[in-house]
Amino acid sequence: MQRYFISTTIAAGAQAELTGEAAHHIQRVMRGQVGDEVEVVTDQQAYRSKIVALQPDQVSVRLAATPLPSPEMPNQVIIACSIAKKDKADWIVQKGTELGASGFTFFSSQYGVAKWEPKRQDKKLVRLRKIALEAARQSHRNQLPTVTILPDLTALLQVPKDYGVVAYEESAKQGEAAALVTTAQQLVGGQTLIAVFGPEGGLAPKEVEQLKAAGFMAAGLGPRILRAETAPLYLLSALSTLWELRGANFKNAEA
Amino acid sequence: MQRYFISTTIAAGAQAELTGEAAHHIQRVMRGQVGDEVEVVTDQQAYRSKIVALQPDQVSVRLAATPLPSPEMPNQVIIACSIAKKDKADWIVQKGTELGASGFTFFSSQYGVAKWEPKRQDKKLVRLRKIALEAARQSHRNQLPTVTILPDLTALLQVPKDYGVVAYEESAKQGEAAALVTTAQQLVGGQTLIAVFGPEGGLAPKEVEQLKAAGFMAAGLGPRILRAETAPLYLLSALSTLWELRGANFKNAEA
Repeated sequence: MQRYFISTTIAAGAQAELTGEAAHHIQRVMRGQVGDEVEVVTDQQAYRSKIVALQPDQVSVRLAATPLPSPEMPNQVIIACSIAKKDKADWIVQKGTELGASGFTFFSSQYGVAKWEPKRQDKKLVRLRKIALEAARQSHRNQLPTVTILPDLTALLQVPKDYGVVAYEESAKQGEAAALVTTAQQLVGGQTLIAVFGPEGGLAPKEVEQLKAAGFMAAGLGPRILRAETAPLYLLSALSTLWELRGANFKNAEA
Repeated sequence: MQRYFISTTIAAGAQAELTGEAAHHIQRVMRGQVGDEVEVVTDQQAYRSKIVALQPDQVSVRLAATPLPSPEMPNQVIIACSIAKKDKADWIVQKGTELGASGFTFFSSQYGVAKWEPKRQDKKLVRLRKIALEAARQSHRNQLPTVTILPDLTALLQVPKDYGVVAYEESAKQGEAAALVTTAQQLVGGQTLIAVFGPEGGLAPKEVEQLKAAGFMAAGLGPRILRAETAPLYLLSALSTLWELRGANFKNAEA
């Protein structure tokens, strides 16, 4: 079933008005009729909703009395990536949204070769937020991930968090294989984890020191070398496995 | 360091001859000189190797006396996907190789809309195998994943395996969240798991029945709906987490 996000807060059982692209999509793409059902997300709750009226630029729906089960991770995971080449940022946002990220932020790092011109950043953000919205709709998320661009690592260190990890190739080479699970076990009840990923050339040792000083743990993501756009997908899948699958005798997974 | 695969078996400490694309890459792309080091993989063992002689189409190297640590998963995982549209098969093979798959097979399924013309399949295989080789080199794999195309699900059921899972959206919707971990715990000592993924439209209920009758367990991959090309990456990352990271109190991970 098609899912639409609305930015206002609507109470369970109440009527909501869909406008703009959502109204266009329901009427022109899905050929929706009065009586058809769609899913509407308001304030991170999703409701089956019945179309009650159609106007040229507006679709009125009535929300069900109870929300649908939430498909959200039990904690917030922000993926912080060094600015990426070509369409890699698009892929990170699309796949990361499917895999449950709560937000994405892109920052300039010392060894990063890709640059996003300041005057083009607004356009880039519009594009990435649109990709996040489409992926959130398709993967039936309740939460629309945020997308931001930060000037550098120092700005990233100002972002509020409960825990932080940094995927650092040198740690992985040394066989570090415990930090991710240890960190995953510490998060409870909707806390926020920021996970930092360097560019293809890696983070500079000084950047890693800066991150460690700010409380980020260096975490290995298995024994193989992952590309910059693959590592965030491994991390999100690993956290889902630990938090959302059952049977690993892992406390959060049993909740 | 650059890694090259050779198809012959060379003993530790012995001399090996690299020819073809490997020889070209070392001399023309990397500008390798006598005395430089490369990594050579023979018979799923990787060795640091010193260049001892250069000829126009051949590079002679001497292997170190002991192999490098293996980055391979403790068990074999074959990713079996319904034939995919556009460049999605490329992505599955590239990312799946990075994430440790031992092989990929693509099969025609009932609801699959993509078709690979029989006369173009050889070309497709050459392309996908080249992608697997490049990804295996970049992610420092010891094992070069196999790539095959099968006519249908019945042919897939003939492929030897120890365990099988099928990613089935209906199971995920019903909250199935234990089968993947349970199965992961059963594999020991290099056994083979085949993981089956349907097309965007899903597998037909009859196909799922056929798979279940052949011993495949329906396994949920977390509460979000994943695209056909994302689900295999989740599965491989989940298995790596369970088998290769430490701290989840999961017996195989402690080995």
